[in-house]
Amino acid sequence: MAPKLGILAGSGELPLRLIDACRASGRAVFVLGFEGAADPANFAAVPHASIRLGAAADGLKILRENGVEELVMAGPVRRPSLASLMPDRRAAKFFARIGLRALGDNGLLSAIIAELEIEGFRVVGADSILATLLAPEGALGRIEPDTQALADIARGLEVARALGALDVGQAAIVQQAIVLGVEAVDGTDALIRRAGPLRREGVGGVLVKIAKPAQERRADLPTIGVATIEACAVAGLRGIAVEAGAALIIDRAEVAAAADRTGLFVVGVKPT
Amino acid sequence: MAPKLGILAGSGELPLRLIDACRASGRAVFVLGFEGAADPANFAAVPHASIRLGAAADGLKILRENGVEELVMAGPVRRPSLASLMPDRRAAKFFARIGLRALGDNGLLSAIIAELEIEGFRVVGADSILATLLAPEGALGRIEPDTQALADIARGLEVARALGALDVGQAAIVQQAIVLGVEAVDGTDALIRRAGPLRREGVGGVLVKIAKPAQERRADLPTIGVATIEACAVAGLRGIAVEAGAALIIDRAEVAAAADRTGLFVVGVKPT
Repeated sequence: MAPKLGILAGSGELPLRLIDACRASGRAVFVLGFEGAADPANFAAVPHASIRLGAAADGLKILRENGVEELVMAGPVRRPSLASLMPDRRAAKFFARIGLRALGDNGLLSAIIAELEIEGFRVVGADSILATLLAPEGALGRIEPDTQALADIARGLEVARALGALDVGQAAIVQQAIVLGVEAVDGTDALIRRAGPLRREGVGGVLVKIAKPAQERRADLPTIGVATIEACAVAGLRGIAVEAGAALIIDRAEVAAAADRTGLFVVGVKPT
Repeated sequence: MAPKLGILAGSGELPLRLIDACRASGRAVFVLGFEGAADPANFAAVPHASIRLGAAADGLKILRENGVEELVMAGPVRRPSLASLMPDRRAAKFFARIGLRALGDNGLLSAIIAELEIEGFRVVGADSILATLLAPEGALGRIEPDTQALADIARGLEVARALGALDVGQAAIVQQAIVLGVEAVDGTDALIRRAGPLRREGVGGVLVKIAKPAQERRADLPTIGVATIEACAVAGLRGIAVEAGAALIIDRAEVAAAADRTGLFVVGVKPT
């Protein structure tokens, strides 16, 4: 029997899908939601608690009191400045040691995971709880990218890889070789929204979303879901390319159906 | 006596400053403005004409008929898709040869300049007309960046250099190590506007704007002016770092005064 799973929950659907997977397999679960990101009302059916991001000591205590041994991080959390984080003594010690001033998101998350393991927790990736999350290679729905879309995907991969290498973001939108936007701290949803008004005439653009080259695979894997498809359709995009084997697709069948319904392609690609 | 200067005019202040410089030195000038970017009303005092971007044959004919030998490109032009460009036969031949589908802005501008030189024009940089445009090293106003600002500038330089190497954009905004945004086709003004709501608590961010590593120096050098300072102040930024010797500062004295007035620093740096 798998030990009780602690879910460190941010926003979005992923924490809910992991809860569903645990309940389906009879695995005990405890949710620790981050204030401002996770909505506690979503977790009413399972044991849960909320803490603010800077409250490291309380967080560790709550996890131990609830018998959590294994942890998974799920769902995005808006990264605050050090000034607004109000770290407790435990968190302040950690930040002083890692040098927060210079870390990108992936560097920060990797350091947090290392710290949780020092504290005796095992940290696993969301895809180890729910294997069907990982994007397969090839088209998910009926529509396949054409020649211009493939060229835009190649350009998007090049740009997203360079950005990811600098730990800036995971996504780029390219239309007819023009880079309409790249993701930074604003996130993929904001990137898609701002690409809409930048759209040029002719065939639409492509969202490319891949893992960072040094991606900590147990946190913040690139993720898309039905809402991503719908936002891309509204913004006039033609499709989405994600990294096969390294991006999470929440509700694969529903994503495929949404892609077919909106006329978009969703394709898993292997960056070369 | 310098030959008549043809100004290929986009939007913004730069074409006007070049006209002023020519009139001050008694040099003859002819302005060819691009529809949708340059406002013909700005050029009422000098000989001028307007064409749409795709009308290459007409443009070349107008320049020759007006006795232009030397050309300068000044001011941004919104890049259209091939679908909306409606290239004439001359332009279509050019695009077919250069492979527009895969070119970034800098690649495209370099190809256009090479083409203009094949047509017999000499193309010069705006800084050769008005030498005081080039950003000097060091602080322009009274305020200097502090330690956190210097760290944010270093991070911004790293990000902008990587983006520029891929011919995506020239600018990034960093606050306390968090990359709030990077410039793509939307341009620097839009980047500054969208960074405002992403601002974290504590000391504000820094705009870093540098030339692309393979920058064609006769087109699209990174440019700032008084409006840039004012937009940065509204967005809660603390300052601007530009590349010394490779960025253009329009109205240097007014920019320094605006920086002092709004409490921002403006500093010319040499990327290492």
